[in-house]
Amino acid sequence: MLFVTLREDPKDAEIPSHKLLVRAGYIRRIGSGVYAYLPLMWRVLRKVSQIVREEMDRTGAQECLLPQLQPSELWKESGRWDTYTKAEGIMFAFQDRQNREVALGPTHEEVITAIAKEMIRSHRQLPLHLYQIQSKFRDEIRPRFGLMRGREFIMKDGYSFHTDEDSLKQTYGDMDQAYRNMFSRCGLEFVAVDADSGAIGGSGSQEFMVLAEAGEDEVLYTEDGNYAANVEKAVSLPPDAVPSPFTKYEKRATPNTPTIATLADFAQCSPTAVLKNVLYQAIYDTGLQVLVLVSIRGDQDVNGVKLQNELVKRAAQFGAKGILSLEVPDEEAQKKWAAKPLPLGYIAPDLGDDYIGKTADIHPKFLRLVDETAVNLKNFVTGGNEPGYHVFGANWGQQFKLPSLQVDVRTAMAGDRAVHDPTQVLKSARGIEVGHIFQLGTKYSQALGATYTSENGEEIPLWMGCYGVGVSRLAQSAVEQSYDQDGIVWPVAIAPYHAIVIVPNVNDTEALGVAENLYEALNQGGVETLLDDRNERAGVKFKDADLIGIPYRIVTGRSLKNGKVEVVKRATKETQEIPLEELVPTLQQWVQEALTRE
Amino acid sequence: MLFVTLREDPKDAEIPSHKLLVRAGYIRRIGSGVYAYLPLMWRVLRKVSQIVREEMDRTGAQECLLPQLQPSELWKESGRWDTYTKAEGIMFAFQDRQNREVALGPTHEEVITAIAKEMIRSHRQLPLHLYQIQSKFRDEIRPRFGLMRGREFIMKDGYSFHTDEDSLKQTYGDMDQAYRNMFSRCGLEFVAVDADSGAIGGSGSQEFMVLAEAGEDEVLYTEDGNYAANVEKAVSLPPDAVPSPFTKYEKRATPNTPTIATLADFAQCSPTAVLKNVLYQAIYDTGLQVLVLVSIRGDQDVNGVKLQNELVKRAAQFGAKGILSLEVPDEEAQKKWAAKPLPLGYIAPDLGDDYIGKTADIHPKFLRLVDETAVNLKNFVTGGNEPGYHVFGANWGQQFKLPSLQVDVRTAMAGDRAVHDPTQVLKSARGIEVGHIFQLGTKYSQALGATYTSENGEEIPLWMGCYGVGVSRLAQSAVEQSYDQDGIVWPVAIAPYHAIVIVPNVNDTEALGVAENLYEALNQGGVETLLDDRNERAGVKFKDADLIGIPYRIVTGRSLKNGKVEVVKRATKETQEIPLEELVPTLQQWVQEALTRE
Repeated sequence: MLFVTLREDPKDAEIPSHKLLVRAGYIRRIGSGVYAYLPLMWRVLRKVSQIVREEMDRTGAQECLLPQLQPSELWKESGRWDTYTKAEGIMFAFQDRQNREVALGPTHEEVITAIAKEMIRSHRQLPLHLYQIQSKFRDEIRPRFGLMRGREFIMKDGYSFHTDEDSLKQTYGDMDQAYRNMFSRCGLEFVAVDADSGAIGGSGSQEFMVLAEAGEDEVLYTEDGNYAANVEKAVSLPPDAVPSPFTKYEKRATPNTPTIATLADFAQCSPTAVLKNVLYQAIYDTGLQVLVLVSIRGDQDVNGVKLQNELVKRAAQFGAKGILSLEVPDEEAQKKWAAKPLPLGYIAPDLGDDYIGKTADIHPKFLRLVDETAVNLKNFVTGGNEPGYHVFGANWGQQFKLPSLQVDVRTAMAGDRAVHDPTQVLKSARGIEVGHIFQLGTKYSQALGATYTSENGEEIPLWMGCYGVGVSRLAQSAVEQSYDQDGIVWPVAIAPYHAIVIVPNVNDTEALGVAENLYEALNQGGVETLLDDRNERAGVKFKDADLIGIPYRIVTGRSLKNGKVEVVKRATKETQEIPLEELVPTLQQWVQEALTRE
Repeated sequence: MLFVTLREDPKDAEIPSHKLLVRAGYIRRIGSGVYAYLPLMWRVLRKVSQIVREEMDRTGAQECLLPQLQPSELWKESGRWDTYTKAEGIMFAFQDRQNREVALGPTHEEVITAIAKEMIRSHRQLPLHLYQIQSKFRDEIRPRFGLMRGREFIMKDGYSFHTDEDSLKQTYGDMDQAYRNMFSRCGLEFVAVDADSGAIGGSGSQEFMVLAEAGEDEVLYTEDGNYAANVEKAVSLPPDAVPSPFTKYEKRATPNTPTIATLADFAQCSPTAVLKNVLYQAIYDTGLQVLVLVSIRGDQDVNGVKLQNELVKRAAQFGAKGILSLEVPDEEAQKKWAAKPLPLGYIAPDLGDDYIGKTADIHPKFLRLVDETAVNLKNFVTGGNEPGYHVFGANWGQQFKLPSLQVDVRTAMAGDRAVHDPTQVLKSARGIEVGHIFQLGTKYSQALGATYTSENGEEIPLWMGCYGVGVSRLAQSAVEQSYDQDGIVWPVAIAPYHAIVIVPNVNDTEALGVAENLYEALNQGGVETLLDDRNERAGVKFKDADLIGIPYRIVTGRSLKNGKVEVVKRATKETQEIPLEELVPTLQQWVQEALTRE
């Protein structure tokens, strides 16, 4: 078999699981963010897929396979073509030889809804849930961490169709349970968290996070187990504001105070007494640029995801469907629209619209939003619309008009009090997103005209849910969660093999014969076993077995003369001698116990 | 479950299997040449894949998964980038967001050779055989016949690596057997034929053809079973030439005889006495155009594939690696290079090179080839290089110089005598190519520098083979080979389900109860069973069951009162009544027998 381990870490690998999978010969980089899954890895991935499949099938979902090549027409119907090819820019899109636009699927809402439109006619066919396990594509600008953020990766994605929201919620609940089962069976420590629905959309979604230092996501949770959310979505109670000491309104020179920290220091007040005004530049999918001014309490930060969601909600008022980009404009970006130099660091909520130059593709007025933390501020300090000046003791309704758009766009932070129970304090952890379930509602069925005929003969848009598992990412996250200085420690359920038989000295024909017999007997007994009969030093073989992380190592060594073999558990390094005749049943039992426990 | 049948054939379907798979709800067109495999089809494809996997694993091959996204660099190293993106133009190629060229893999020689280069170091690792089952892509100009010629389709492709040619031939032989096993187990009638290696290259290859009227390939074979070949590759003995009556050389007016038929008619001689000269225009991958003049016996036709292979062999003399196109130039093409009007229909083998205008990208001389059928012609008739004139009684070495390039480029035809036994006559059949195995030799390993270290410490290029099965095409070909006026007749081994239990009247609660019990018992007994308890007329359900082609139909009808159910075999429509208690063991036995027989 193909079995090549490396002594050195690959240059481009930053996190342990990526290094280990390459060093142990599981994966091989073929191009940027693109990997070959070598035979050991493919066994792991097939085991993960099989667990996913069993849990999906148990809920009554049916497996299918949808095309990876997708015609642009469907994405234009749903309104996501621009978002996916220009905004997030994550979809590979190109022209075929007939000059038709096609894309490589990063997700399949459009395709499955088109099928549902043709195939689902009656309420009697519902609910229906189809899923597939397939390679997906994202044209990531910065692929990294091996399989964690690749450009080609394996996903399970499922789509359910319903007569109404209750039925959707029922299946959504079933999926929550199925996902918990999958991840438990794969031997993962995970947490389910409230999540932002992003470009998929819909009314509610939940992510499943494998907890690990290298996770790209931040999770906020409470120790009572009653709240956990992706920071993109998390809510919390902000700290109480310290009452402002500035009871009299006045404009003051505040030299060199462009940040909240410098200002609070200069003014000798709490940042909670400051009103911060942050300027954003949004580009809607019609090309229209809108300048957004967000007022928020000085000690708080704007959450870009929440802000984007608020702006997408308001897309219709600008004749748009979505947003292509949202950024704090840098100097160069400002030059393109600012009619005069902006008082950066000293902006007030009433910054004049005359700062915006008149250009066809720029909305002529600031879109002014106020975060909930700032609505009830009294006697606050804020910018003077003039560099080096702030106003003190300001109040809404007096010096400044309170924006009518009052929103929650603040970033929840570790240390904040929980909404569900203010005695609980949010804690922070890093997570790797391995699953995400969504209540889509009727977003796609309405866009694509997918309806069913109700008992009363009405045509009603299908209610939909969708449910994803990152199969290849999950496999790597298992390594990220379980390794030691010697290599990978696979959970038994997804280890490429359960056991490895090592012959320390292949010139010892008796030991070799015993090893070969054990190898045969174990495999026949359902214990998936490798045989390392390479002509290498025993130490090299032990190191390799540790590196690739096979749960049980069997050595036909010195104890053979007592009719025993040495068995080492990879996870604990615990060693014991087991009589030859007991080996197969012992390992069968261990494997069985591990599969049941995990 | 998703179960929707159509009454009408889809508009774009030309062949029975395509119509049936769409009508029976197995597949759904998503775009040009792109299909969704719905749950019933996916079950078929998984069964085919599993049979393929078992036969591959039995030979010691190991499964892996290679990326579908492939960097252009690898294809440029092997010299196939231009051939695949411009010439055959079958590869989807495009730029990613970093402006790097990438392609969607139609095949994986480059990727696997790059992996072998890194991973294979020593002769002790050889032989090694890796395979994968995966969706592949071809940007077909005219996708058709459903899954037969799609733009996205499922393939098994395997690649073996060897120290030498003997080892390669050993594995090639094992694959021949493994492929025969696969196709037999899938219940197909097939034939193995000699094949052209095409753009894959290498020294020898064999195709496996499922025989069916709708096949796109022509197979020539002898009834003794000792010869079969794709017409692209086939050899045969041409009919004996009738001695030419023209013993005296002379040029004659032959008005209106631009074709062999008109000429033979006019001259009152056999077409075998005529030397035909066919003009081709080849474009090498350097952009150089070469005009090719092929002389062949009048009754024979030039085989474009054989001619192309001869021209590729001579690519090096033009500084090229391959050919982008090979065509009989039409009027417009001629205009671009002809210095004066060509005597079309009246060309002689010595047509002057001064017909070729001097242009940088056109080779200034005709490349003259003579087919073996024309080498020994005596006193032949051929063109006079002047419209309306031929020469009669010509001979090589007298009026014409015999080209030094003597080749076999003739098309073998049904009716020809076989080379291996001239008493055998070639017959013709249509076939669907479902497998193709190749001895690649060292073509790719040399191009990409993939070597191993021999026992003597030498670096030697790896010998390679590659082996493909069209999984999705195979599934459809099974339908093309097995259907009747009522629908599909699946071989048991790849039927989506073995049996279907139909309740004629779902209001008959007793019959429904029995059906549900049988359904449970059959599934638990390993007989994969569907239950049709829809509230539809019995006739509709019987029609649907016939259409989707489930091998055994069980009806809980009138015979229930005698403790029996009616069982109908789909293939033969044979009906019998089976006591309830015998049903499960009877069906278990039938399924088992069918799986063993096929």
